[in-house]
Order: sequence, then C-alpha cells, then structure tokens
Amino acid sequence: MNYYAKPLNRLIGELSRLPGIGGKTAQRLAFHILSMDEKDVNTLADVIKQAKKEMVYCSVCGNLTDRDPCAICSDKSRDESTICVVESPRDLVAMEKIKEYHGYYHVLHGTISPMDGIGPDDINLKSLISRLGNENVKELIIATNPTIEGEATAMYIARLIKPSGIKVSRIAHGIPVGGDLEYADEVTLLKAVEGRREL
Amino acid sequence: MNYYAKPLNRLIGELSRLPGIGGKTAQRLAFHILSMDEKDVNTLADVIKQAKKEMVYCSVCGNLTDRDPCAICSDKSRDESTICVVESPRDLVAMEKIKEYHGYYHVLHGTISPMDGIGPDDINLKSLISRLGNENVKELIIATNPTIEGEATAMYIARLIKPSGIKVSRIAHGIPVGGDLEYADEVTLLKAVEGRREL
Repeated sequence: MNYYAKPLNRLIGELSRLPGIGGKTAQRLAFHILSMDEKDVNTLADVIKQAKKEMVYCSVCGNLTDRDPCAICSDKSRDESTICVVESPRDLVAMEKIKEYHGYYHVLHGTISPMDGIGPDDINLKSLISRLGNENVKELIIATNPTIEGEATAMYIARLIKPSGIKVSRIAHGIPVGGDLEYADEVTLLKAVEGRREL
Repeated sequence: MNYYAKPLNRLIGELSRLPGIGGKTAQRLAFHILSMDEKDVNTLADVIKQAKKEMVYCSVCGNLTDRDPCAICSDKSRDESTICVVESPRDLVAMEKIKEYHGYYHVLHGTISPMDGIGPDDINLKSLISRLGNENVKELIIATNPTIEGEATAMYIARLIKPSGIKVSRIAHGIPVGGDLEYADEVTLLKAVEGRREL
C-alpha cells in the first residue's frame, strides 16, 4: 500500500500489530487519530509511554502495579490464610470483581506447557514456594483456567504443595449460572456431574 | 473500575475513546501494550504523535498528505480534464485502488446535512469552485456515498456546476459484482433498474 503518505502508513502499520486490530481497523483508527485535536493525540501517546514506564510487576505476587509491593499485597486487612493462584493480572481482576474473595493472590504469568517448551521454571512459581514458607498460609486456591495447560499447572502445583500440609483447592468447573444443559459441551457437563454436591 | 493502578486505568480510558474500541477491547490492548518491549511501546507512541504532526490537508484537493500539494496534485502526468469529488481521504484511496482512474480529486471532508447543521460552506466546496475556474476541467465525477446526505450533496454540486458547461456525472449505484438480486435491498435494486444500459 503506497496510497498513503509515509507517516500515515507507519501509523497504520504500528496499529495493525496490536492484537485483534486488522488492516481495515488500523486504517479506521489511524484516520480517527488524524482527525483528533493535536492535544488529545499527544495525551494518547504520552499515556501509552507513561503506562509502560510506570507499571511494574509486584515483587511479592507478580501482579501489575505502579508501586511495589502492589496495593493488594500491602493491604494488611486482607485474609493472610489464603492465596489464590491465577494465570494473569486480568484473571486477578476478574476474581476481585466478585468482591467475595479477601485473601492474597499469586500471578503465574502463564501456565506450564511442555508443548511450547514452558516448564515450571518459566512461570512465576518459585516465589510462590518461598511465600508459602514465610507466610502464614492455610489454603491455596488454584484458579488457573480450565484448559489443558491450566489443569496440568493446577495438578503440578497441587502435587508440589500438598506434602507441606497446606490445603490446596481448585475452583469449580460446571454449568455457568444462567446457562443451559442442552447447550453445554460434554466436558463441562462431565465436570458439573463430577463436582456435584449434596443438597 | 479501581481494580487497576492509575497509569493502567488512564491507558484503558484513552484507548476506549477510540472508535469501535469498547471497554473489554481497551483492556486487552492495554495489557498487550504493557507486555510489549519498552522500545516498541515508545515507537508506537512516537509514530502516533509524528503522524498527527506531519500529516496535513492538501491546499489544492483537501487530501491528507505529508507535503503540500499532495502527491496526486503534484503529479503532472495525470489527466487534468477530470476531477473526482469524494467525501473523505479514505474514499479517495478506494478510488485509487481500482487503478483505472487517472484524473485529479477533490475531498469534501463531509456532506451537506441540514439536519446536523452542516451547510455548503461547512465542507471543502469553495476551493472546488475556484479550481474549476482556474483548471482545465471538462468533467466532474461525483463519487459521494449513496446515502441521503451523499445524494443531496451530489445534487447540490451538480446544480451549482452545470451552468458553467462542465459535464457533471455521478458514479453508478446498483447490484455489486458477485452480489445476488435476492439479497439486494429494494433501493439498490431500483437504482440498478434505473441505471440499466443497452447491451
């Protein structure tokens, strides 16, 4: 495409490298940016740079934060007896949104995936072990995603931690609330039956 | 949302102001940006600023360009007898992509729309009139979109220019190539019948 002048072409190119932004969307965004006030454009660019510069990983739990330790790890009012293990900072936010979990977190930044050459040492797991040694943790809730890698990671962590006497639990998988048995896939339905509870 | 630290929250906020980027997409993009190398993030931010700074409107045709007059207006090998009138720089690019039009362009940057308070003086129309007075134009091809505003603008320009003796034409509207009569809307089909040509 040399229909566009170079600065516009470069902008479209950079935007289309973002996930979920195809060529057409990148063009639409680029033209929108050119139609914005210069002040707003500079704000957008500065906010991008600033976020990247100021956001770091919490040295305790691995969450994204602008101060270390993060707001959750520095909150002494939380329940120190539980740590919830999640794959990503976004999963942590999903957990926080239910407003019912008051313990601490540990963000793995990925899952064990031998197919992709990702072993236990390539995710944020070592610091979890040392946390369990130092902190007064009674239960580890594993909230990795119900994918093959997420399940394998959950199993790996469970086997690693159980001998130390700490309770290891896994969040339930089953029919989502409001869902319909008719449309649930077999694996989900199987998990729902396996996870049945007496009423 | 105060689940995110301030710099991240600001980034999500700025991104979600872009067209077609909702809250969820803005979050996904923000997390992706934070996972990028700092070098790449700075490049993205700089390219945004640079594009806004360097791209201007061509003083002749109104197209977006990094030099004035734009590459098309400065190309003396093009056919000076025709000017194609389009609504936006993106429409100009769509025309260029067919590679069969070799005349010049005029970008209106909008359409006449009394409902929105946009009159003939609010679009880039005056400079078209002065171009027609100075340049050796024989035909004006009106390629505004087949919307109510686009049609009204086409009619307005046609009435304005015709007395000067310059031929004014409108691009054809009808069934798209590869389209199916069964699925065409009534207005498109009506336009197709009205615009029929003898074989």
